[in-house]
Amino acid sequence: MSPATGHVLGVDSGGSGIRVALRPVPGSGPDLTWSSSAPVAVGERGVDARGLLGQVLPAARSLLARAGAQRCEAVCVGAAGMVSLGADLRAVLPSALREALGVRRLALASDAVTAYAGTLGQRPGAVVAAGTGLIAVGTDLTAEGGWRRADGWGHLLGDCGSGAWIGRAGLEAAMRAYDGRAGGSPALLERLREVFGPPPELPAALYPRSDRPAVLASFAPEVSRCAPGDPVAADILRRAARHIAEAAAAVCPAAGPGPGRGATPAATGRQAGLADPADEVYGAGGACDVAVTGGLLRLGTPLLAPLREELQLQLPHARPVAAAGEPLDGALCVAEALLTDSLLLPADPPMLHIVC
Amino acid sequence: MSPATGHVLGVDSGGSGIRVALRPVPGSGPDLTWSSSAPVAVGERGVDARGLLGQVLPAARSLLARAGAQRCEAVCVGAAGMVSLGADLRAVLPSALREALGVRRLALASDAVTAYAGTLGQRPGAVVAAGTGLIAVGTDLTAEGGWRRADGWGHLLGDCGSGAWIGRAGLEAAMRAYDGRAGGSPALLERLREVFGPPPELPAALYPRSDRPAVLASFAPEVSRCAPGDPVAADILRRAARHIAEAAAAVCPAAGPGPGRGATPAATGRQAGLADPADEVYGAGGACDVAVTGGLLRLGTPLLAPLREELQLQLPHARPVAAAGEPLDGALCVAEALLTDSLLLPADPPMLHIVC
Repeated sequence: MSPATGHVLGVDSGGSGIRVALRPVPGSGPDLTWSSSAPVAVGERGVDARGLLGQVLPAARSLLARAGAQRCEAVCVGAAGMVSLGADLRAVLPSALREALGVRRLALASDAVTAYAGTLGQRPGAVVAAGTGLIAVGTDLTAEGGWRRADGWGHLLGDCGSGAWIGRAGLEAAMRAYDGRAGGSPALLERLREVFGPPPELPAALYPRSDRPAVLASFAPEVSRCAPGDPVAADILRRAARHIAEAAAAVCPAAGPGPGRGATPAATGRQAGLADPADEVYGAGGACDVAVTGGLLRLGTPLLAPLREELQLQLPHARPVAAAGEPLDGALCVAEALLTDSLLLPADPPMLHIVC
Repeated sequence: MSPATGHVLGVDSGGSGIRVALRPVPGSGPDLTWSSSAPVAVGERGVDARGLLGQVLPAARSLLARAGAQRCEAVCVGAAGMVSLGADLRAVLPSALREALGVRRLALASDAVTAYAGTLGQRPGAVVAAGTGLIAVGTDLTAEGGWRRADGWGHLLGDCGSGAWIGRAGLEAAMRAYDGRAGGSPALLERLREVFGPPPELPAALYPRSDRPAVLASFAPEVSRCAPGDPVAADILRRAARHIAEAAAAVCPAAGPGPGRGATPAATGRQAGLADPADEVYGAGGACDVAVTGGLLRLGTPLLAPLREELQLQLPHARPVAAAGEPLDGALCVAEALLTDSLLLPADPPMLHIVC
């Protein structure tokens, strides 16, 4: 069998569940897909590799059987937490996937990279992947530039503007109304009662759970629903939109390197009125492709209207593009590029780690 | 032995550890004390009673032995999470303490109530207990009024202005600087590196821990240290001060009942320019005693200066008083009042539950 033909597997593991897809290469017919709403647990060793395999291996075997195939030639696993909490995945997945599925080529990617590939394919630009969590990544496709990343630090350290962030802010505003504190929203309190029951019992329902970010994010649609008539809810979505655009601005190739990587924004040409570094990448007058993708877009106009304004305000030179795909498509895209030796996206562990 | 004499035990269980004190009644000599820096875990059943007993019982036996005593006549356990996460404590502690220590009278209290008693004793007023978490309680000492409470909903739903809140905001600002996002603080990033090591490794160090609020709160002193020279850190403390005063304003007896208990602030006499309801409690011109107490005060002037301004702004009729004591003193105060049948603070479960 030629190395450029066979079946490739894409895996997308996020805060709200796992999705798996199998694709024949060269393509013929639709991808076979499987999904679960049980997110992989985060334990002492980070994202739990055995928990992920416990869902992915049976799913992959079932998809292979449906396709009448014996093995996966190439796999790309995109996972939330891959960068910061991926040690167990990196230690366990390579040999486990080789042994169980006959995998020859494997990529382990941040879910932000698979979201990027699902949205912009192998073009340069910036993508914000926003769902339960939020991370922004950008690349100019050069090996030196690698991947830039902003946020994705989880619900306690960041993920600003994410579903968990919006839901948490909405629940805080509801509890403020319950207490009679300033900044409360009676409308959100009403929604909290409807969704979770008596407010004083919410802490006991929330804190012992291992999927706290998903619980918080489950309230984000209520914030969006209240926003048209409730100034507190509308302000939460306005602030979320600002945070989302801030993350995009920090990774957009045209914006120059961030201070975390050795240069302050004030030192880049763009802010100082000198030659725009974007010109080197895109030519004079070129713009960075910027997209926001992920489940957060389902919040609709109450979020998307301020988001459009904030992107225009903070990234006036960027070209907003429609989100063309899903992280699962991106995982398939990377796996297929691995198989056909056509990967343009930069290998830059732990953002995108080409294992073999 | 008369029921009004004997040894009483006070317990203070908070996010940063447990403290226990034994007092002879009538008093002679200093209280005997014991402390541990290991907080009680929060599990599926809420605050873990066996974990608390595992520390408190050996400590109590040791203190009794030092005092040459055989039993505790009365005990007050003040615990963070008693209100929302105290089901296991309420189920297990009564019989366990009776069997192990011979306890005849027992009170289970929110740590906010013990903080109140440690600060204002048995006078009417409002107290904000601020440490790793934050809760405000107030009472006019009437049985009908009971206890008013604001916040204390934990680090994901509230505890606004607490140590965990300040530390979390400081870490977010540090990660923003690392990413090159807006709102970042290079000074706080420097402190993060010093305290926790490389920023990308912080999520893996934080999220798997069961004492996440304490980890977050451990960064609050760094925010205070940076505030004099760093506008981002100073703004975090200014916002914390505002939140602390908001919680105090919501429970201060003079402010009327909050909307969570059936009346909106706008419907009370104070806001509407009618007769001040405080007059009924304190007489015309009387003021509510308001105090902020707890470990958060150790952040010093960078927090206390804006806090003084915010209390003056939001509670102009209140009389700020120096924090006279600790939650542990309050637990002893309640236990002693139980023993001597002199309890004035209103029994109002689950804020203050007189078991026997």
